[in-house]
Amino acid sequence: MTYLIDGLQYANWSEKIFREMRAGGVDAVHVTITYHETFRETVLVIEQWNRWFEQFPDLIFQGRTADDVRRARETGRTAIFFGSQNPSCIEDDIGLVEVLHTLGLRFMQLTYNNQSLLASGCYEDEDTGLTRMGRQVVAEMNRVGLVVDMSHSGERSTFEAIEHSSRPITISHANPASWHAALRNKSDDLLRALGESGGFLGLSIYPHHLKDGGQCSLQSWCDMAALAVDLVGAGQVGIGTDLCQDQPDSIVEWMRVGRWTKAIDYGEGSADNAGFPPMPVWFHDNRDLAGIRAGLRAAGLDEATTDGVMGDSWYAFFDTSFGVQSVP
Amino acid sequence: MTYLIDGLQYANWSEKIFREMRAGGVDAVHVTITYHETFRETVLVIEQWNRWFEQFPDLIFQGRTADDVRRARETGRTAIFFGSQNPSCIEDDIGLVEVLHTLGLRFMQLTYNNQSLLASGCYEDEDTGLTRMGRQVVAEMNRVGLVVDMSHSGERSTFEAIEHSSRPITISHANPASWHAALRNKSDDLLRALGESGGFLGLSIYPHHLKDGGQCSLQSWCDMAALAVDLVGAGQVGIGTDLCQDQPDSIVEWMRVGRWTKAIDYGEGSADNAGFPPMPVWFHDNRDLAGIRAGLRAAGLDEATTDGVMGDSWYAFFDTSFGVQSVP
Repeated sequence: MTYLIDGLQYANWSEKIFREMRAGGVDAVHVTITYHETFRETVLVIEQWNRWFEQFPDLIFQGRTADDVRRARETGRTAIFFGSQNPSCIEDDIGLVEVLHTLGLRFMQLTYNNQSLLASGCYEDEDTGLTRMGRQVVAEMNRVGLVVDMSHSGERSTFEAIEHSSRPITISHANPASWHAALRNKSDDLLRALGESGGFLGLSIYPHHLKDGGQCSLQSWCDMAALAVDLVGAGQVGIGTDLCQDQPDSIVEWMRVGRWTKAIDYGEGSADNAGFPPMPVWFHDNRDLAGIRAGLRAAGLDEATTDGVMGDSWYAFFDTSFGVQSVP
Repeated sequence: MTYLIDGLQYANWSEKIFREMRAGGVDAVHVTITYHETFRETVLVIEQWNRWFEQFPDLIFQGRTADDVRRARETGRTAIFFGSQNPSCIEDDIGLVEVLHTLGLRFMQLTYNNQSLLASGCYEDEDTGLTRMGRQVVAEMNRVGLVVDMSHSGERSTFEAIEHSSRPITISHANPASWHAALRNKSDDLLRALGESGGFLGLSIYPHHLKDGGQCSLQSWCDMAALAVDLVGAGQVGIGTDLCQDQPDSIVEWMRVGRWTKAIDYGEGSADNAGFPPMPVWFHDNRDLAGIRAGLRAAGLDEATTDGVMGDSWYAFFDTSFGVQSVP
């Protein structure tokens, strides 16, 4: 079976987008439901998703296990898996890890650019590595089956998460820095360590993570994918587009600024390029996802490796990551 | 299969009590997790239960479906089903009905003695029946599989809940008022209407609901059970002890007073009898539950009806009540 899975989107969700997921044959999407929101605010977002699931049962449903991806394919729908890009949703309460997992959360970043209670973000001057609470929370995430995601974390924190976590972690949406130098992209050493630990890399199509930004060609991106497979390992690389479709620029400001500053922080942008950057011409929405396949083949990936990047490898990662940790 | 199920307890939980459940062969208990607590406070209680489930996996686990009762029997454990005695946990937000159901809530009272946002409690002077929000919430509870419990509600509100609910409701812990007149016990007319609608009555052993209070004999209680079966229907009556084992008197005050008054309200007690009343000699903890069987047989109930009251009828009710409503 060849699945089509996107490992990260944060769109301004609508029936239009859900229909595009179906038109694109997308079996599963890991969607960000929360950044700087408190637990209660995160639950409000889950309530909104529950209404969408109730309203569009023929298009989408909530995914909880890898088997739901199979069920999505069989029933012609898209399985939606919840993730958080920051640990604000667990506040200072480790008990919320299991509660949010029960509500369907399957990924949680330990940081989003800044220092959190758990670890350091990639924009901090100092990277503390995992904090005392961070080590406890990683162990609890391991226990219940909530995947540690280090996409927006600092390098030392990410190395320590790989080391400390008893289950493979992910970087759900980033690219090799050796292809395009960006604070959010990851060093070859880090990607090799990720691969050796059984971890997973989702490749981003967010323009700030791309060589030549929005001008990046499909072939350049697919050549980068082949490089990533070499660094991390076949079977351990997938897609994590970071698609932020139909979002107003106020949302990228919320993502960057939250409530932690009264000033403006431009994150990966700048004062004269503050909004969402324009996407590459070959990727605007879920209907463009399947088109990546031909580029991967042209980049020299064999059939099985291509199937893996398109979704089969995420499927295998979901299958071993979302359940309660088996006690040896 | 003969199951042993208690349809309502609110003990000061401890390993001792969990071991007594096992010693008593209790397959499932509906436990109250919240009264006047907000959503966030209710989640804190769920977190505490999650720790108990983690700490005592050989004694207890969280029940979500009737099949978990079967699994409890097969694995020699007790399945714990969550319930709320007041709708404070959904605040003013109907979306929390599904969220709490996902977290395992299986019963919710529309009121606890007082007027709520949904209906009227049995201690109010005026009974409004179901409110505007009450009708919406009952429909949502029906949809997701959260059982409407009217144990502490006024008579008109209870009649209207029976009428408005598209799925059978329960009165999980009360007795016929024709046996012992108490505000919390229910009229014969109401119990007949409950039975005709497919609803369910759990019989209480809380002394204020008993003829002769704590002096009530097992045989008197079992004769009452036979009367209840006549009123509500064989297969629609079980046990809901209302056991509040090992609780300090401060807890009965919280149950009665919450944060709604600065004065003291004695509920079913009185100024000179303010605490928890002493239990009948034949029922102190979960080990005494199985002993009720002989009394029911002596009261003239046949074997099958006795099995039903002891747990098989709750099992059948769980089996049709906790899942998503099937669309006709």
